Amino acid sequence: MESRDFVTYDVFRRSCPSHTVLEVLSNKWLYLAMMALRSGRHRFTDLQRRLEGVSPKMLTQTLRGLERDGLIVREVFPVVPPRVEYELTPLGREFARLLGQICDWAIANVPEILEARERYAGREK
Amino acid sequence: MESRDFVTYDVFRRSCPSHTVLEVLSNKWLYLAMMALRSGRHRFTDLQRRLEGVSPKMLTQTLRGLERDGLIVREVFPVVPPRVEYELTPLGREFARLLGQICDWAIANVPEILEARERYAGREK
Repeated sequence: MESRDFVTYDVFRRSCPSHTVLEVLSNKWLYLAMMALRSGRHRFTDLQRRLEGVSPKMLTQTLRGLERDGLIVREVFPVVPPRVEYELTPLGREFARLLGQICDWAIANVPEILEARERYAGREK
Repeated sequence: MESRDFVTYDVFRRSCPSHTVLEVLSNKWLYLAMMALRSGRHRFTDLQRRLEGVSPKMLTQTLRGLERDGLIVREVFPVVPPRVEYELTPLGREFARLLGQICDWAIANVPEILEARERYAGREK
């Protein structure tokens, strides 16, 4: 499959599509939206409540980016008021699994990282 | 071990240390610096060459953050001109392995993501 020939991709090069993908993917709200969607379909307002500190604008942008990249699907139900739900695609579920490992690692290593920060701050004095 | 009791950590809450860690960790230059250091010790100038488009200031900030968090060590050799080398710590190697999986996934799925973007752009017209 010619379009799958990614041998020449180089994530370090700005002009490489893999770099663009990585750029989009390294974003805090994206991580958190993906993590929140691991538990199933969610409405916009559910996600907004879960992602503490996200503005509606940032959440809209994040979800639009994820939909554009084929990681989530957005479904609009023709009710009054309209109900909009978001769900991971199979591609998104794969990605969420990998991000979940990073989240789990971050959580498991918080004490070690905080200790390193204290040591570093002490050295600076 | 009391300091390892991370049962109450919640990555979605801004006040949680795991959230802070995640925030620092979701950064493109950090990803790329960690990936570049997977192949071993590197000098500042090597890293700058490898990370296309990074400014010296951004690279300095990135490396300082990684050192502060205990993910890399910085070694200064007392030669003229001074030689400074960076290397992953055991904690950093663990993290780099996980980030590597995300990078590999991004590279492997570039075609699928680009196709999704084309479909999305077509829908918007």
